[in-house]
Amino acid sequence: MSLITLITDFGTSDYYVGAMKGIILQTAPNVRIVDITHHIRPHNVVHGAVVLRQMMACFPRDTVHVAVVDPGVGSERRIVAGRYEGQYVIAPDNGLISLVHRDMRLEGMHTVRNTRYFRAPVSHTFHGRDIIAPVAAHVASGVSIADLGPPTDQLELLRLAKPERIEPAGLAGCVVYADHFGNLATNISVADLESLYRTNGGVNVFVGEHCVGPIRRTYSDVPIGEPLALIGSSNMLEISVNSRRADERFDDSPETRIIVRRDAATC
Amino acid sequence: MSLITLITDFGTSDYYVGAMKGIILQTAPNVRIVDITHHIRPHNVVHGAVVLRQMMACFPRDTVHVAVVDPGVGSERRIVAGRYEGQYVIAPDNGLISLVHRDMRLEGMHTVRNTRYFRAPVSHTFHGRDIIAPVAAHVASGVSIADLGPPTDQLELLRLAKPERIEPAGLAGCVVYADHFGNLATNISVADLESLYRTNGGVNVFVGEHCVGPIRRTYSDVPIGEPLALIGSSNMLEISVNSRRADERFDDSPETRIIVRRDAATC
Amino acid sequence: MSLITLITDFGTSDYYVGAMKGIILQTAPNVRIVDITHHIRPHNVVHGAVVLRQMMACFPRDTVHVAVVDPGVGSERRIVAGRYEGQYVIAPDNGLISLVHRDMRLEGMHTVRNTRYFRAPVSHTFHGRDIIAPVAAHVASGVSIADLGPPTDQLELLRLAKPERIEPAGLAGCVVYADHFGNLATNISVADLESLYRTNGGVNVFVGEHCVGPIRRTYSDVPIGEPLALIGSSNMLEISVNSRRADERFDDSPETRIIVRRDAATC
Repeated sequence: MSLITLITDFGTSDYYVGAMKGIILQTAPNVRIVDITHHIRPHNVVHGAVVLRQMMACFPRDTVHVAVVDPGVGSERRIVAGRYEGQYVIAPDNGLISLVHRDMRLEGMHTVRNTRYFRAPVSHTFHGRDIIAPVAAHVASGVSIADLGPPTDQLELLRLAKPERIEPAGLAGCVVYADHFGNLATNISVADLESLYRTNGGVNVFVGEHCVGPIRRTYSDVPIGEPLALIGSSNMLEISVNSRRADERFDDSPETRIIVRRDAATC
Repeated sequence: MSLITLITDFGTSDYYVGAMKGIILQTAPNVRIVDITHHIRPHNVVHGAVVLRQMMACFPRDTVHVAVVDPGVGSERRIVAGRYEGQYVIAPDNGLISLVHRDMRLEGMHTVRNTRYFRAPVSHTFHGRDIIAPVAAHVASGVSIADLGPPTDQLELLRLAKPERIEPAGLAGCVVYADHFGNLATNISVADLESLYRTNGGVNVFVGEHCVGPIRRTYSDVPIGEPLALIGSSNMLEISVNSRRADERFDDSPETRIIVRRDAATC
Repeated sequence: MSLITLITDFGTSDYYVGAMKGIILQTAPNVRIVDITHHIRPHNVVHGAVVLRQMMACFPRDTVHVAVVDPGVGSERRIVAGRYEGQYVIAPDNGLISLVHRDMRLEGMHTVRNTRYFRAPVSHTFHGRDIIAPVAAHVASGVSIADLGPPTDQLELLRLAKPERIEPAGLAGCVVYADHFGNLATNISVADLESLYRTNGGVNVFVGEHCVGPIRRTYSDVPIGEPLALIGSSNMLEISVNSRRADERFDDSPETRIIVRRDAATC
């Protein structure tokens, strides 16, 4: 039985999620639908791109991922269907696939244009229901993405800030967003840190002007209520407060600079 | 494999949803459960009626829809099981089925009374778990709704405000509610508009005293941050702000009058 | 087809829930995943313990329940797998299983230690994805909990306040938490009440100093907007306001004393 996952910014108080599920199940009665989230921040393509990338790492081959964060619905923006390392993604071409595209091996990308697989009529404001859901159900039922429309090698990509080297021995990045627990995800990856980081310490992490010490292993390495830096479960540097919310202690906007610096002493 | 959908106002922080799912799966181990929403506004039967109606349009025949928004639980209000165009609805008889009943072809309605299909004992405060869930599981397993209790042709129906004609050429309706994105759903349908609306314009829409111009095709027909009127995905007139929240710009209470008026010039 | 339920405090705006579902489906492609809640209050083990206990009463034999409320992730706290009346629970050993353990018959408890069933590598901050999800999928596929690690008869148990007798004829308990509707769950059970309660009245219930009268049958036994006490659907005394929120009328903190007292007259 095929799997279709759903990532949207629809929330769960309207009929939108139900409409997509109904159309999927009408089209492909045996598919299994897996809710990932319907609480991507409204219209926030960056947030959607991060969650899509992180969760795809955990799914089996042939899963069809439906991602709908679509402020440009009804405009000229395209809908695309891509295959990455054996998994499928169907989404508006507005940057939502950027991080998957950066990190996973592309095996095919098509513009979704074949109206044969659409619901009729297609509304101007809900392509999730009228195009993406039925197309995903067809792909999950065995339709090739090559049947959906012409191949394409152009994709709208987000320009995300990258951490920068600072002299003599440091990195400057920024906050990406605060998660449900108030932990601050940053744009600094394990790979970025490898040139600086020593398992026995040797670096200090600063949130703005505030030093939170070296990179720890887990939350309980510091007392409850104390801030810390650690490598989060998606291999990115994260700022936390043990058992409390870091976003109540620090500014969680992307303006907040995160500095990792080799220092003689731990602060 | 049969489908049971769930629409409730239970929220997702308690055991209520889990209890219903467990009872359904105990009774009908092979049924598939589809979450529509558990965030109908607490006790808000109108909100539940709208979501139920809108999403049923997308589901296949034989789906069993469970709707529980039930402020009168434990009182004398009945529970009913209806069949509309091949789909089933099981719900308290408090108006929740009103819009389905108005818009879809009724094929059978029974009062749910046969305790053989209930969980025992039945509590006074959670008929969702004790009556509606097990009855729905039985219906999904092939029990006829005629076995649930006597037929009935009486149903508690909501009295919803209808848009009114205003002279010389206009309609006056109201806001129904704001959706997750802050869009204002109104009670004015495409059918209501047909006598007034011209695809090349010719009408202006007013939210209270504020003119938002003609009826547009989609959000991006106006600049980001600008208000507009359009036909939403459920074929009702909707007031939006491109990429922003209309409910922060306008009053989203049902007191807000929505006027559609034929005018010589677009405002 | 096996069932795995999920209870977490992960919220639904991050990739955490999706990651667990993906790992489960990679490991056991035919399992069915049932969302119970991802809105246990962050780090609130008591809330998780209550919901886990209440919903397990409704599930069939062989269900595998995954419970992750895990402020101590990455520390020395163990993960355990228990069998209670034919159902399985896999959770951190931090009190989350306390109420299940108190109320259901234990049939086996093992420390989860066999890395063969883990995802590799195991992160320090997301054992839900790396240990609990794959282990649960293996158990749902037929792996015995005895294969997961050594048996254990020690379990971290919450010390929950119990109601106390007060003279000459009463009970003093407290609020446990407010549910989604604002109803106040208390720590006073039907069993606790049995020595005092008479179906024809005879007791008064006080929230702090405020008398809400005898124990009623259901919400609509009092006018809309009036407070009442009743036996909730999980057989615990509950303080409500008909069609309104009790947590806006009364303090919902555990400091709020709930008194049930035999009185000559109803107040």
